[in-house]
Amino acid sequence: MPAPFTTLSDFRNMLVQMPGSEAVAIAQATTRNGQLTKPPGALGRLEDLAIWYAGWRGDPRPVIAAPQVIIFAGNHGVCAQGVSAFPAEVTAQMVANFEHGGAAINQLAKAMGARMDVHALSLDRPTQDFTQGPAMTEAELLSALNIGWNAVDPQADLLVTGEMGIGNTTSAAALAAALFGGTGADWAGRGTGVDDAGLARKVAAVDAGLALHAPADPLAALRCLGGRELAAMAGAMAAARYHRIPVILDGFICTAAAAVLDRLQPGALDHAVAGHLSVEGAHQRLLDALGKVPLLSLGLRLGEGSGAALAIGVLQSAVACHSGMASFAEAGVSDA
Amino acid sequence: MPAPFTTLSDFRNMLVQMPGSEAVAIAQATTRNGQLTKPPGALGRLEDLAIWYAGWRGDPRPVIAAPQVIIFAGNHGVCAQGVSAFPAEVTAQMVANFEHGGAAINQLAKAMGARMDVHALSLDRPTQDFTQGPAMTEAELLSALNIGWNAVDPQADLLVTGEMGIGNTTSAAALAAALFGGTGADWAGRGTGVDDAGLARKVAAVDAGLALHAPADPLAALRCLGGRELAAMAGAMAAARYHRIPVILDGFICTAAAAVLDRLQPGALDHAVAGHLSVEGAHQRLLDALGKVPLLSLGLRLGEGSGAALAIGVLQSAVACHSGMASFAEAGVSDA
Repeated sequence: MPAPFTTLSDFRNMLVQMPGSEAVAIAQATTRNGQLTKPPGALGRLEDLAIWYAGWRGDPRPVIAAPQVIIFAGNHGVCAQGVSAFPAEVTAQMVANFEHGGAAINQLAKAMGARMDVHALSLDRPTQDFTQGPAMTEAELLSALNIGWNAVDPQADLLVTGEMGIGNTTSAAALAAALFGGTGADWAGRGTGVDDAGLARKVAAVDAGLALHAPADPLAALRCLGGRELAAMAGAMAAARYHRIPVILDGFICTAAAAVLDRLQPGALDHAVAGHLSVEGAHQRLLDALGKVPLLSLGLRLGEGSGAALAIGVLQSAVACHSGMASFAEAGVSDA
Repeated sequence: MPAPFTTLSDFRNMLVQMPGSEAVAIAQATTRNGQLTKPPGALGRLEDLAIWYAGWRGDPRPVIAAPQVIIFAGNHGVCAQGVSAFPAEVTAQMVANFEHGGAAINQLAKAMGARMDVHALSLDRPTQDFTQGPAMTEAELLSALNIGWNAVDPQADLLVTGEMGIGNTTSAAALAAALFGGTGADWAGRGTGVDDAGLARKVAAVDAGLALHAPADPLAALRCLGGRELAAMAGAMAAARYHRIPVILDGFICTAAAAVLDRLQPGALDHAVAGHLSVEGAHQRLLDALGKVPLLSLGLRLGEGSGAALAIGVLQSAVACHSGMASFAEAGVSDA
């Protein structure tokens, strides 16, 4: 276990040494897929998903038995700029709601048979308003990365990271702009539902943050513009790679956090699939930049890992078909 | 219970008297949806689905506890025209595969917690080749409609109808063309994977069927160009309406069968949602004609109810969120 990371360089070095997918398992799973009782290709993306999953698990006939959903929560100094339709205390209130089982993600995790963990990250100490200074110190960023890394159950066989944090769509938009270029207008969306004036304040806050910080380094961008829950998600997704646990990306905020890994190390998200297309901000643009095609597009914009949790069912179904179906020979079915 | 229908007029009359959705349950579910701990609209189509489901079940806080998947299988005389990549005996072989649990739909039904039933309809007596004469007699059509109707468990709370029948994408294309206009080239697809020559034979068979039969009446089109499993699916979807059981439509063949009900009686498919967009034939065109927007688009083209079964998970998730989430007041979360 490389964590806890004591410097950001440790984290960077770990990413360079990440394990890859297993070619033998992919080859065996591909062969098996061709023998199953269905016309070639008739299960569409389910076939690709099953083979991809088999490769990361190193098992040509895998099962998904222990999915894990982790929710990270953080508060954001940029809320001072009037960027959210909800007051900042809602972050802590929603954490309590997660803990009591009342949120959407609770119902979805339960429906998918997933374990769910909640980590509230220093909610009483919001990040600094990034229009005034760096959101986090290096120590705060490291702490959040480590918390995310350590939150992953090494025995999990699928990971969804979700978030809660009033103000964090503004932070994610600024981070995406720093990583991929563009301005506040290119990346900001309505989040929990701000009106036109609120959206204008979000755009202005992102542009102010970009003017104040021009970090070329992805980890510096995460530190200056991100938030604790975004950093923790990035840490958790890196840990999943280390443990060869496939990841389903959620919406705009989760994908922005994931993009930090991709910008640090090409291929760092090869173990991740896009669970859904959110209608928040420029999620499509972010997914395009990462070369990810979403599994679902149902108009969600909730966060909490909700879209990714919904996609657990698709991946479970893909793997269930792959590993449970009979071959033509086993079933005595004539091939084409 | 109106079935068994002794004449086609009985079936037509039943459709006219179908129950509708309950306005009170819809109003109550809409109110509840607005109180749940999420920004308004943040669950996108899941919110619409839950309210729609509540209306059909007459329950503002419903559960999905007993989904049923029914597979109907039939054989097709039009196979004599060389329209399939697989031999006709595969229909019976796949029925055995369904019964032994080896097909894709078995894995999907199991993953969704659905009961699965299989009905093989006179596989040793294929329908007549519709390029030579009507596919079915009135008695054969009535029998299939009744079998479909009676296959539905009145205690089910969600229905998926699937099919197996070598040659049935050709039959479905001809039926779609008869119902909505157009030619073989507009509606035929590659089915289980025919090559260009095979596709040309499918197009020619559809055009020959349309030239021989020009039935303006939807039930006559089903009789002349359809198949037993298509008729049984239509009967089952009508029975679901009678029992107020919401339906998830599968791919091209299932949707063509469903379209017969829509053409017989406007609104007859209001209790049905499109589970997925198949890449077979002109499924998009068929869904457009019915005004249905698919929940999933994952490149499937298998039939068996597979795409609809996958969508059971989406509908279950929608209803689980709606009925399981806490309200702002219950959770002590500040509203916007």
